[in-house]
Amino acid sequence: MSKITLLIHCPDTSGIIAAVTSFFYENKGNIIYIDQYVDVENKIFFMRLECEFKNLINSDSFKNEFRNRIGDPYHMSWHLFPAKAKLKMAVFVSKYEHCLYDILGRYRSGELNVEIPLIISNHPDLEPIAKSFDIPFYHIPVIKGKKEEAEAQQLELLKENQIDVIVLARYMQIISERLIKTFPNGIINIHHSFLPAFAGAKPYHFAYKRGVKIIGATCHYVTEELDAGPIIEQDITRISHSHSVKDLILKGRDLEKIVLARGIKLHLDRKTLVYNNKTIVFI
Amino acid sequence: MSKITLLIHCPDTSGIIAAVTSFFYENKGNIIYIDQYVDVENKIFFMRLECEFKNLINSDSFKNEFRNRIGDPYHMSWHLFPAKAKLKMAVFVSKYEHCLYDILGRYRSGELNVEIPLIISNHPDLEPIAKSFDIPFYHIPVIKGKKEEAEAQQLELLKENQIDVIVLARYMQIISERLIKTFPNGIINIHHSFLPAFAGAKPYHFAYKRGVKIIGATCHYVTEELDAGPIIEQDITRISHSHSVKDLILKGRDLEKIVLARGIKLHLDRKTLVYNNKTIVFI
Amino acid sequence: MSKITLLIHCPDTSGIIAAVTSFFYENKGNIIYIDQYVDVENKIFFMRLECEFKNLINSDSFKNEFRNRIGDPYHMSWHLFPAKAKLKMAVFVSKYEHCLYDILGRYRSGELNVEIPLIISNHPDLEPIAKSFDIPFYHIPVIKGKKEEAEAQQLELLKENQIDVIVLARYMQIISERLIKTFPNGIINIHHSFLPAFAGAKPYHFAYKRGVKIIGATCHYVTEELDAGPIIEQDITRISHSHSVKDLILKGRDLEKIVLARGIKLHLDRKTLVYNNKTIVFI
Amino acid sequence: MSKITLLIHCPDTSGIIAAVTSFFYENKGNIIYIDQYVDVENKIFFMRLECEFKNLINSDSFKNEFRNRIGDPYHMSWHLFPAKAKLKMAVFVSKYEHCLYDILGRYRSGELNVEIPLIISNHPDLEPIAKSFDIPFYHIPVIKGKKEEAEAQQLELLKENQIDVIVLARYMQIISERLIKTFPNGIINIHHSFLPAFAGAKPYHFAYKRGVKIIGATCHYVTEELDAGPIIEQDITRISHSHSVKDLILKGRDLEKIVLARGIKLHLDRKTLVYNNKTIVFI
Repeated sequence: MSKITLLIHCPDTSGIIAAVTSFFYENKGNIIYIDQYVDVENKIFFMRLECEFKNLINSDSFKNEFRNRIGDPYHMSWHLFPAKAKLKMAVFVSKYEHCLYDILGRYRSGELNVEIPLIISNHPDLEPIAKSFDIPFYHIPVIKGKKEEAEAQQLELLKENQIDVIVLARYMQIISERLIKTFPNGIINIHHSFLPAFAGAKPYHFAYKRGVKIIGATCHYVTEELDAGPIIEQDITRISHSHSVKDLILKGRDLEKIVLARGIKLHLDRKTLVYNNKTIVFI
Repeated sequence: MSKITLLIHCPDTSGIIAAVTSFFYENKGNIIYIDQYVDVENKIFFMRLECEFKNLINSDSFKNEFRNRIGDPYHMSWHLFPAKAKLKMAVFVSKYEHCLYDILGRYRSGELNVEIPLIISNHPDLEPIAKSFDIPFYHIPVIKGKKEEAEAQQLELLKENQIDVIVLARYMQIISERLIKTFPNGIINIHHSFLPAFAGAKPYHFAYKRGVKIIGATCHYVTEELDAGPIIEQDITRISHSHSVKDLILKGRDLEKIVLARGIKLHLDRKTLVYNNKTIVFI
Repeated sequence: MSKITLLIHCPDTSGIIAAVTSFFYENKGNIIYIDQYVDVENKIFFMRLECEFKNLINSDSFKNEFRNRIGDPYHMSWHLFPAKAKLKMAVFVSKYEHCLYDILGRYRSGELNVEIPLIISNHPDLEPIAKSFDIPFYHIPVIKGKKEEAEAQQLELLKENQIDVIVLARYMQIISERLIKTFPNGIINIHHSFLPAFAGAKPYHFAYKRGVKIIGATCHYVTEELDAGPIIEQDITRISHSHSVKDLILKGRDLEKIVLARGIKLHLDRKTLVYNNKTIVFI
Repeated sequence: MSKITLLIHCPDTSGIIAAVTSFFYENKGNIIYIDQYVDVENKIFFMRLECEFKNLINSDSFKNEFRNRIGDPYHMSWHLFPAKAKLKMAVFVSKYEHCLYDILGRYRSGELNVEIPLIISNHPDLEPIAKSFDIPFYHIPVIKGKKEEAEAQQLELLKENQIDVIVLARYMQIISERLIKTFPNGIINIHHSFLPAFAGAKPYHFAYKRGVKIIGATCHYVTEELDAGPIIEQDITRISHSHSVKDLILKGRDLEKIVLARGIKLHLDRKTLVYNNKTIVFI
């Protein structure tokens, strides 16, 4: 362990920053990034810190000491990650390919600090793309009345491959409670509207009907309430009366893939913390 | 009449553009701007055209000829404006001053092709601003149970001053049906969210609560359904978890004034057409 | 020929729009898009028009008639394209893959109305990507002192494949006069700055050094003066003091690919006209 | 003193954050904001910190202790400000009023934590605006060959009014070396282009000529090299071929006033640090 990232949240009180930074200093660490935020209303303290160590240090004993001297006394919820550790990510798709192409292009060019062991789809259409990127593709149809069986298959594959995070790259199925509970704050979705406007199906159709002058996309963690999970990232693009629904869909593709990619990166770089159905995004 | 603006909508059919442009050509007009749009679904044709004439032409006989040869045969709804004609605009305010300062600053510097004969408010607070810009200010309190009386006073003032268009510059009262019907597509409001998200009261509070990463402002024509009228212009700004409701309100002020000013300009320059609760905005 | 796109520029005079639209009307065409622009300073008229015909019409006789009755009398420079005709596009790359992935993803998903018969590179690195998309890849090294030979090879390939347009997708070589003259307004480049700022090499390094708060990307036609050709499209993204040159390069990738894609689309849809080293972009 | 802001820069070394935060903790301070940045290339550490104290503390003895225990040992350049202390700001204008209106509107509505004791102009035109806001206005003409005298007058007024910061709100004169040296990093200018593009005079004309698709505005500290000082804030807006120079000037006004206001606020809130002709902006 030579470089670590630390994420903390705990009840707010005086002296936390001093305590944490002194702890790292005494352990010969050099803090290269620190950012903190206090939710004044709920009196919660949040912090993200990156620290480099000249010498390798023993991960377990370091964690124990941190727990005893800092974590427990301050009633912290904390996570310490070696900076190089790669998460394992599954990509779920249906028929739209633009987000998948974008994720895989970034993956191949080394832009994402992640492993992608598999792609799961309820349709066979995108298998050739998976193949051209040499990534195993599993076609698991979701048939009415047999959704639980499909889900069981998915869960087994996710377990086998030790998946940490799931990305829904325009996967057109509602995710069940069971999967959500297995991956708390671990399922990332892209919704094609600036939420909370136009939650649910066919947002571009509703945006067209309402006559908005901007359309958006929202990357969020999946929770049980549809399109209501903690928002990681959003962006928008301008449209006009002259754009048809088809135009919106086409323009939206670029938004969706960029916003999803930003959200994935923030998650993989451990820059997000979820609290009270909102995200703290350290940048 | 040496320069005119023409706004048209009518059932779509072949040959409209040729007929209209030929008519202007035969009348020695030089078209300096033409833009058109077809609502394919509803088969409606929309057009905006600016035309210069070397010689002054008689407005009434020109309009009659246009009606007989073009307007009536094509079943057009059309409006022909001398380019220089200034609309008369009333500004309604309550306690927030940022939009008022912005409108009056633009007005004084000649940025807006308009006359502002009066400002109406349900509170006395902004009277000094009106005074410093030498614009009559009428304090008409809106008291529970006596709203109709206030409205009657407003309507009389608007009539006396031959008002064409009303701008609600953060006016914190619901506009009644009667006023709306008197000024169809003639009341411009600024709402402090990217509609349709966060319609109604306290949008910044709800935006904060939902944890959105962008906030917006929407300029729209007022209709009877609250915050549901035709959208003229929208824009957004990025926020983060670290912004409090107070920060959102402060950041939103700049958005509100800029978006409102853009909407007002589009209206004053006759660049908007309303159809099916949406705007066609010719730019 | 059932749908056509017409691009025109000519000396400005009265009656052009009436003449053109009447011509199409008489030929049983239905104009579904018209946009025009007058460069007042230089007195040049520009127009783009899309027209549908119910019956197939003879392309040659139609063009002849248009030339005789409209094109020649008004001294027009004009181009008439069947809407469905696909251009043939060559992609030039070096070592960066993000723009190539993006173009090929869009190509495969049918987003671009184009054929891509070949990819040319001065390095072998990206051959696997070309292969995975089943597109012929030609490695033509550009060796100091032997640049002309490489160019001759390129020209032969371009000719053989009847290439209409070349896209430089982060191709890191200066394009020679000969190639530029063979493809006037037919070579599209992406430059990784908001031109005219930071023309030339290493724009992200210079942006970092200058301490700008926004970085940009510019899609332009290639002319003999480096990075000084007509700009088709630009966009920007915000940065801060905390971003290193490496961060700028990473953030810039998304900008580059999106801006290049928009530029390519505008060209393929015949929405650009070049005049006086500037583009008229009809949207 | 119950709330302070601290700005630091010093050679980077281990333990600075721990030392500073421990110092504040021991002095019964509660850190409510901390942000830091390391210029890795030049090995410089920068930090901004806000701290609340329950009890009033003695400013002088606190500063002495900080100097002895932290500032000197770490070779820091540091500034400690009581959060409530208001800077005194002079506004320089010429003939354009939009930035002045905007600043004064914000000032009056309490948006800016500042005092504005005077406005100085080389033209008499904007005096009525100053009057309507009850702010002393000094007309100091700048006559060729007598620039030094005008400057002497300016300096005397600035001294008399104990001015801390000067804002050039579209002041159309070159600021002399003497004034710049008297107010190092204390003169804020708004330039109407996205610097470094279009430095110098008539940027909108050059933007039009170059055919850019975006225009910008840049707020920066004035240094001796024209338009080359540290950039505080920038923003842009989209334009098209159809915009004339006059349109750019009009569109630019909104950009200029918003970007200038943001820059002023960042300065007044002590959120900027200048180093190596760049700004660190803590947000």
